[in-house]
Amino acid sequence: MSTRPARSGVTARVLDVLGAFTARTPALSLSDIARRTDLPLTTVHRLVGELTAGGALDRGDDGRYTIGLRLWEIAHLAPASTGLREAAMPFLEDLHEVTRHNVQLAVLDSADPGEVVYVERLSTRDAVSIVTRPGSRMPACATGVGLVLLAHADPADAERVLARPLRRFTPHTVCDPDDVRALLAQARAGGFVISDRQVEPVSLSVAAPVRSGDGPVVAALSVVVPADGTNPHTWVPAVRAAARGISRALGAARP
Amino acid sequence: MSTRPARSGVTARVLDVLGAFTARTPALSLSDIARRTDLPLTTVHRLVGELTAGGALDRGDDGRYTIGLRLWEIAHLAPASTGLREAAMPFLEDLHEVTRHNVQLAVLDSADPGEVVYVERLSTRDAVSIVTRPGSRMPACATGVGLVLLAHADPADAERVLARPLRRFTPHTVCDPDDVRALLAQARAGGFVISDRQVEPVSLSVAAPVRSGDGPVVAALSVVVPADGTNPHTWVPAVRAAARGISRALGAARP
Repeated sequence: MSTRPARSGVTARVLDVLGAFTARTPALSLSDIARRTDLPLTTVHRLVGELTAGGALDRGDDGRYTIGLRLWEIAHLAPASTGLREAAMPFLEDLHEVTRHNVQLAVLDSADPGEVVYVERLSTRDAVSIVTRPGSRMPACATGVGLVLLAHADPADAERVLARPLRRFTPHTVCDPDDVRALLAQARAGGFVISDRQVEPVSLSVAAPVRSGDGPVVAALSVVVPADGTNPHTWVPAVRAAARGISRALGAARP
Repeated sequence: MSTRPARSGVTARVLDVLGAFTARTPALSLSDIARRTDLPLTTVHRLVGELTAGGALDRGDDGRYTIGLRLWEIAHLAPASTGLREAAMPFLEDLHEVTRHNVQLAVLDSADPGEVVYVERLSTRDAVSIVTRPGSRMPACATGVGLVLLAHADPADAERVLARPLRRFTPHTVCDPDDVRALLAQARAGGFVISDRQVEPVSLSVAAPVRSGDGPVVAALSVVVPADGTNPHTWVPAVRAAARGISRALGAARP
């Protein structure tokens, strides 16, 4: 998870405490939190106490803390959930049913366009391996959804992303900025991206942009399927049609 | 949404600002927030600025604020998401496929056992009307999942809930505490609940408990289907089997 610069104020410290929790470590002790946030233990003790009283954190029997239900509720008021996910779900489910693998919906992090955040991910017991889940994030350049989103992002933002070193996951991860630029241009021209074995050697993703009606690209949709020699272009029409369906639903939902 | 007593400290005020956002009003101006929290506008301005800098709130082009993506990410680290939802999803999807209506997964609010919070809700375009979505909450006594959860909650907590007036939604909503007690006893004896037209006159729910392995009840699963004269008991075995499947998955996942 990207780190953010330190800021002053209690609010910033509260967010630092909440930000100490990660997917790999969803349960933390006071000492864990103090270590990760670099805050004094007394400060952490007080903030954690107040957050627990407010339901933003829960205290387990083992004395460790987890993110609380109240935060879960509040977070579901985010437009990514109320508007985007709601409109997208029927299309995600339909696409999921016909692919029988993984279907994903993601947005670009407006604070850091180099990363995408997954809003939804549908999978099946027999689906090809997938590393993402709702709420997780990935480098944009290494994913189909990320490449689609970057292709339609502010070009200055995209260039800033490409000015930084690109993280490698497999021998197929595209790490050369010029190669990424070519993929972004293809994405704009063709209306889709095939991200081939960039994250895991066993899978590829086929992604398409989701617009708000006829407006700007607000999200990206992808299927993640086995890289087993089947022609990935088979998936392109279904993914593009689903993305268009979500775009229409978002356009209809606008007040 | 239940209101919480006022507490001192900046953390409490931060949570009050976040808590001002509701499903009906997911976008708020500074004045809206000040009005709802009873905080001075200058305080709201400062807190909202700090929350926006930290990504917990996003500022829209119209000057109104929404819950931010960063909060969405953090909230997905809640055990309700990482453990419960992850384990439950395949079973929810299977049940969803065979019922073609609505499938829900909910937990009791440990801070207020009188209410349930929905962790997941799968629906279809042609499903019978449903008022819930992930992150929303309902009075426990009026729902199938709530009755199942109350049936297995601490009896003292259940009695405290029944000591308060029960909210009516339809002519079929069970508002008499003794009638609710009978339903809770049936739930424990039979392993399921049929909640008949308590929330909307067009639908009923069939609910069953989800345990952590062989341990305590941690959640409830339900289908919401049309109240169209079809025998609701038809759904009982499928719902109970899915709930057992999730329970086994949760037991296997325990470290």
